[in-house]
Amino acid sequence: MTDTLIQVDLAQSPYENPDVHNRWHPDIPMACWVKPGDDFILETYDWTGGFIQNNDSADDVRDIDLSIVHFLSGPVGVEGAEPGDLLVVDLLDIGAKADSQWGFNGFFSRQNGGGFLTDHFPQAQKSIWDFHGMFTSSRHIPGVNFAGLIHPGLIGCLPDKAMLETWNRREAELISSDPARVPGLANPPFAATAHMGRLQGDAREQAAAAGARTVPPREHGGNCDIKDLSRGAKVYFPVYVDGAGLSVGDLHFSQGDGEITFCGAIEMAGWVHMRVSLIKGGMAKYGIRNPIFKPSPITPAYNDYLIFEGISVDEAGKQHYLDVNVAYRQACLNAIEYLTKFGYSRAQAYSILGTAPVQGHISGVVDVPNACATLWLPTQIFDFDIRPSASGPARMIQGGVDLPLSPDLP
Amino acid sequence: MTDTLIQVDLAQSPYENPDVHNRWHPDIPMACWVKPGDDFILETYDWTGGFIQNNDSADDVRDIDLSIVHFLSGPVGVEGAEPGDLLVVDLLDIGAKADSQWGFNGFFSRQNGGGFLTDHFPQAQKSIWDFHGMFTSSRHIPGVNFAGLIHPGLIGCLPDKAMLETWNRREAELISSDPARVPGLANPPFAATAHMGRLQGDAREQAAAAGARTVPPREHGGNCDIKDLSRGAKVYFPVYVDGAGLSVGDLHFSQGDGEITFCGAIEMAGWVHMRVSLIKGGMAKYGIRNPIFKPSPITPAYNDYLIFEGISVDEAGKQHYLDVNVAYRQACLNAIEYLTKFGYSRAQAYSILGTAPVQGHISGVVDVPNACATLWLPTQIFDFDIRPSASGPARMIQGGVDLPLSPDLP
Amino acid sequence: MTDTLIQVDLAQSPYENPDVHNRWHPDIPMACWVKPGDDFILETYDWTGGFIQNNDSADDVRDIDLSIVHFLSGPVGVEGAEPGDLLVVDLLDIGAKADSQWGFNGFFSRQNGGGFLTDHFPQAQKSIWDFHGMFTSSRHIPGVNFAGLIHPGLIGCLPDKAMLETWNRREAELISSDPARVPGLANPPFAATAHMGRLQGDAREQAAAAGARTVPPREHGGNCDIKDLSRGAKVYFPVYVDGAGLSVGDLHFSQGDGEITFCGAIEMAGWVHMRVSLIKGGMAKYGIRNPIFKPSPITPAYNDYLIFEGISVDEAGKQHYLDVNVAYRQACLNAIEYLTKFGYSRAQAYSILGTAPVQGHISGVVDVPNACATLWLPTQIFDFDIRPSASGPARMIQGGVDLPLSPDLP
Amino acid sequence: MTDTLIQVDLAQSPYENPDVHNRWHPDIPMACWVKPGDDFILETYDWTGGFIQNNDSADDVRDIDLSIVHFLSGPVGVEGAEPGDLLVVDLLDIGAKADSQWGFNGFFSRQNGGGFLTDHFPQAQKSIWDFHGMFTSSRHIPGVNFAGLIHPGLIGCLPDKAMLETWNRREAELISSDPARVPGLANPPFAATAHMGRLQGDAREQAAAAGARTVPPREHGGNCDIKDLSRGAKVYFPVYVDGAGLSVGDLHFSQGDGEITFCGAIEMAGWVHMRVSLIKGGMAKYGIRNPIFKPSPITPAYNDYLIFEGISVDEAGKQHYLDVNVAYRQACLNAIEYLTKFGYSRAQAYSILGTAPVQGHISGVVDVPNACATLWLPTQIFDFDIRPSASGPARMIQGGVDLPLSPDLP
Repeated sequence: MTDTLIQVDLAQSPYENPDVHNRWHPDIPMACWVKPGDDFILETYDWTGGFIQNNDSADDVRDIDLSIVHFLSGPVGVEGAEPGDLLVVDLLDIGAKADSQWGFNGFFSRQNGGGFLTDHFPQAQKSIWDFHGMFTSSRHIPGVNFAGLIHPGLIGCLPDKAMLETWNRREAELISSDPARVPGLANPPFAATAHMGRLQGDAREQAAAAGARTVPPREHGGNCDIKDLSRGAKVYFPVYVDGAGLSVGDLHFSQGDGEITFCGAIEMAGWVHMRVSLIKGGMAKYGIRNPIFKPSPITPAYNDYLIFEGISVDEAGKQHYLDVNVAYRQACLNAIEYLTKFGYSRAQAYSILGTAPVQGHISGVVDVPNACATLWLPTQIFDFDIRPSASGPARMIQGGVDLPLSPDLP
Repeated sequence: MTDTLIQVDLAQSPYENPDVHNRWHPDIPMACWVKPGDDFILETYDWTGGFIQNNDSADDVRDIDLSIVHFLSGPVGVEGAEPGDLLVVDLLDIGAKADSQWGFNGFFSRQNGGGFLTDHFPQAQKSIWDFHGMFTSSRHIPGVNFAGLIHPGLIGCLPDKAMLETWNRREAELISSDPARVPGLANPPFAATAHMGRLQGDAREQAAAAGARTVPPREHGGNCDIKDLSRGAKVYFPVYVDGAGLSVGDLHFSQGDGEITFCGAIEMAGWVHMRVSLIKGGMAKYGIRNPIFKPSPITPAYNDYLIFEGISVDEAGKQHYLDVNVAYRQACLNAIEYLTKFGYSRAQAYSILGTAPVQGHISGVVDVPNACATLWLPTQIFDFDIRPSASGPARMIQGGVDLPLSPDLP
Repeated sequence: MTDTLIQVDLAQSPYENPDVHNRWHPDIPMACWVKPGDDFILETYDWTGGFIQNNDSADDVRDIDLSIVHFLSGPVGVEGAEPGDLLVVDLLDIGAKADSQWGFNGFFSRQNGGGFLTDHFPQAQKSIWDFHGMFTSSRHIPGVNFAGLIHPGLIGCLPDKAMLETWNRREAELISSDPARVPGLANPPFAATAHMGRLQGDAREQAAAAGARTVPPREHGGNCDIKDLSRGAKVYFPVYVDGAGLSVGDLHFSQGDGEITFCGAIEMAGWVHMRVSLIKGGMAKYGIRNPIFKPSPITPAYNDYLIFEGISVDEAGKQHYLDVNVAYRQACLNAIEYLTKFGYSRAQAYSILGTAPVQGHISGVVDVPNACATLWLPTQIFDFDIRPSASGPARMIQGGVDLPLSPDLP
Repeated sequence: MTDTLIQVDLAQSPYENPDVHNRWHPDIPMACWVKPGDDFILETYDWTGGFIQNNDSADDVRDIDLSIVHFLSGPVGVEGAEPGDLLVVDLLDIGAKADSQWGFNGFFSRQNGGGFLTDHFPQAQKSIWDFHGMFTSSRHIPGVNFAGLIHPGLIGCLPDKAMLETWNRREAELISSDPARVPGLANPPFAATAHMGRLQGDAREQAAAAGARTVPPREHGGNCDIKDLSRGAKVYFPVYVDGAGLSVGDLHFSQGDGEITFCGAIEMAGWVHMRVSLIKGGMAKYGIRNPIFKPSPITPAYNDYLIFEGISVDEAGKQHYLDVNVAYRQACLNAIEYLTKFGYSRAQAYSILGTAPVQGHISGVVDVPNACATLWLPTQIFDFDIRPSASGPARMIQGGVDLPLSPDLP
């Protein structure tokens, strides 16, 4: 049997688990050590450490203190790993914990993090997704049922001091450009809710005060939220410190490109079975700045899509210059509008785009002034036919069921 | 035999062909009429109307007057089509002209349009791609050979007057925000090089002065440059004028997501075999603002990818806020750097990203402050193994061959 | 432009075309020569040389003299090819002739060749399939429409004398085991209708008397009718004679595994664009007896199947020992029965299985006494949903249209 | 948490587990009952009930008493199921037991069951496959590593008395045609090693004497060994008795089409998570004799194949009439010969064909006298490039490792 090197107890606070941390800092001690060629299992909390519950209220999504995220399992030390190496990680399998076969998706309030479409969905909402083996469905969104594209939203190695300083400096500069913005432009270090793993004493206090928040993806990978970095993938991570220090968490049962709902994908607690090896000096050999990866040979084979286009003209009709964000937002809004014609609420449609294996492509970025983005909606996830026809859409969803909403705005 | 409703003679100037136009305006007369259910063939020039030649100099790419593009075949009138309908177009097949089995890809000079990586590739360069049945390769880029994902870069229906005015107004506003910028933020109407099809006299002069340029994608579709809108796809276009007025051109033998090289994909002259039908009142029935489509069941099945990540920190280390453009640019630069390790020049690598069926995904757009974009490079297009290994990259490309470059900058 | 080395005129008898032959014999002179690395086009007749017409009568299917088939284009000599080499053939593209955008499928009478289900469909029947670009549909079978998987039913190199003698001897032995059987167990040489290409005089008479019939696949490939050896594939053929002598014909727009209707797939006249090269001594290097190939990267991506099982118990309930033929026949009959529930006639259903890209798998061949075969029916070729549901099948096909039938049995 | 309705203890004899049986008979009592819509888990032994061990000797494969197989978990009663219904089974997930992450493949001695190529591999041999998450590799076969296509080899409902009698009668007739044959043509009922579940007393004795052996697939499905009936598939089973009586076992981590090695696939103990529902009267509504199914949306996406052809001329050069078994045997032998050129032993190559997701297609069954079968070998399962090249095969496997062999023949 494969060894489970890190265990988590969902009934226990993640702050009490010494093999967990929620900040990036080179001084966090290794939780355990492995050799190149080893395979092993790490259990993880969901990204909020259990704050979001399986119920029919969005109060927890509204009220969460986001400074606590993400609770990561690790760091795992790899013998012989040195700065400049590539750490090769085979994601052999990933799953939900046996006693926790469900996940959540939600939209944060605009006052508490928001999301890609926060101007359209400013209030906290939540949907719960039950897992049925390799498949999922939600009691809050009828008519959809799909196979999971299970992946870690967050995985990467510890930064060294120079990289950490770079991160903190450039993000502080951004924040200083509009420090009062809601939601904030970035999240600075915040010691009060830091969990520094096994680090103790003064060293812990200093590291907590400087440790980078886990929210953004960075050079080391981190919170990339790439749905295709899924179980079965092979990933090549840059190594910055001796032992590499690999941590993982924020597991997703499924997600659409962009993780547009922010809270987030279908978030779950679970475990990752992985194998590690090294390419010595691989960063220079291959010119690597950010991780690269080979996607999995085992992913849901949905290949029948309905594709929505969006261009970089915003909701007010204003022309933006080759702005892919605006274009993708329009493609998403177009898909939401389309789905309402079959009876879905707009919130249900938004949640589908955030959870199902939707593709988001950067289709055109040179035809001034309009970027063109496309959203690929898999038709095979629906229980009914969503393709256009001469007879027009049938209203398949009859209402009566919707996502819980917990207001916090006037 | 299927009727060829519009023919083009590559030896003739497109300005002499009355079934061609290069501006969008509701007054352009229909070049021909068809009925719903009809299938027919339209021949097209390449987007430059033959300006770019099959030779080993990039002078033509450097010197082209871009106000002449794009030369479109049409408009085709569809009997019974009315504003508010959806025009359903089945792209039954697309090909290069029998006597023109080649295409071109290039980078414009930064002084003449540029491209997505123009700061890195500021000079005009060109590569020529020969077609071998369904496959292509280039004498300027050894070691790659792939199946075409043939598609029209530009297809859509005529705007009505209100939509045309909207386009012109919002783009003028953008231009006015930085009118001296090189390259320009957008392209205003320009009568001197307009080709208004069969329109004559005063009506022609007025329309030429107001006709929208064909460069950007807009609500009607137009120059979307979506590689997946390929032969075999079924597209649903908004209709704005009686008869719809469908035009098509800018055929591509293959292209990567983003068409990052701008000049452009593998550009070719050719023909489109299509069938049209109508969904009456379809825009309101389905809530359609932009075209939607179902991709083709017949596309190259390359499914082994190496995926490069990019985040929204720019080349100077500056932090941008959730900017997908910056993130995708970094992913592209990462892939280019990687390919140089196998012996490619940076220009060759850039051209591969612009021409091969590379995917560009919007992977994460909510993890402040970094957007994460991914570039998917199909490994099966290479004659050799480009995957990382412990032994490091083998220098498979020995140099001696590169893309022609025609300087115009000091 | 690629050279068309062999042309066929569909208005001319194939017997008058010196670049065509319908028997295998090493003495047939090369129709033309090419060099390794060359690419070129060969036009071909349909396998019957134009006997079957685009009309609504099956008389031609009933009355055809099958000793005339198959009319092949070639042989093409390849410079430097020697016995023991592998001839590498890239099928760069294949298409129907521009003036012949249709094909036929039929069932031969049991008295004239029959088919896989001849005991169930003993009379001659025919369906005509029109090509619409890359797609096809039939006026005789409503409700189906699919992309072509275009391939040559027959392709291979000339045998040498020893191989030819082997073929004739072993097939004669089989015939002699039941010489009166209808349909015959095999087809012996038959000079009366032989077309020996450019061979003349006594040499021609001798070769015509001994030339192997083209009906079966053999060591050299030949009439394999493998749907997956389609345009885009790369094939490695054994070479037996100097110059290889590659011939091709019997083009199919589409076919199901087994070509169960025998007449046959969707049969068409057309052209093949191919490139040839050599692996010197490849037969011994790789231990090759029969051709091997890599399938195409561009094929119809239908991936939603309904799969029917069959076991080796025949229609009378008799138990056969691990007999895949019986098992596949049962799987086919099960699929036909199923399709009748949606309104298809049995003949229409049989034709769908013979023409659409149906897969036939040898699923189990060791669990005594039953072989298990599976027939994979792609659901995406139908205009309606053919999957089972609790409400039972809807009768989508209303009858009134069926396959023409021309009886010849009492 | 999903209920595990049947548990197995791998340390206990399956004969002691009342929820297990190894014969088909309508009188076997239901082990448990469920309702339509329920999902639940059943654990299963490997097909031999633990007889084959994870070691480096093939003695167990040589010495096994095959009359004990297959140990099935069930029958599960479904409330409301009646004869004539279709039982819809969603295979939500399948896995190996946590404490048993390995499987076996072997060839039986010709004296004890044999296999598809028993004349070429007459002695008992074995390979052990270790599971690494979703992947597997074998210490006995270097250079291959692939994702599992996990499926139950055996699943189906209880027969009624009439069907049982039909089975026994037709198989007895076959046996009587050559009763002394080794291996036998079929396996008659055999009470001595029967396990009739919870059935006791005289009823048990009578049922044991008449219970059908589980070896062959039959009308109800049963031991189909269809690799594509994998986790994620939806299966429609005929119901013959009240309550349906669904049993399952013989789990496979992976298998090639045909299960040609007979012992068998990669055989494992494990669990099946499934959901059941009913289509009332579905057998008549859809004309169902044998199960039908929709394959899984999640399967290994190996799509780069090298395809070997075989025709129905046997190893002695004898011509057979449209015999798919002979043709597939030749295709398998051709693939084995090919793999030896890279250094594999013939036994290693045979085992690869039996275990990896190899496809076996019935390509042509009408071109008298030769059937044509194709074997599709996925190239992506190998650590090295197995495709042909002008330079010839590199000997990647250096020998020194092979499959254990335990002789029992003179």
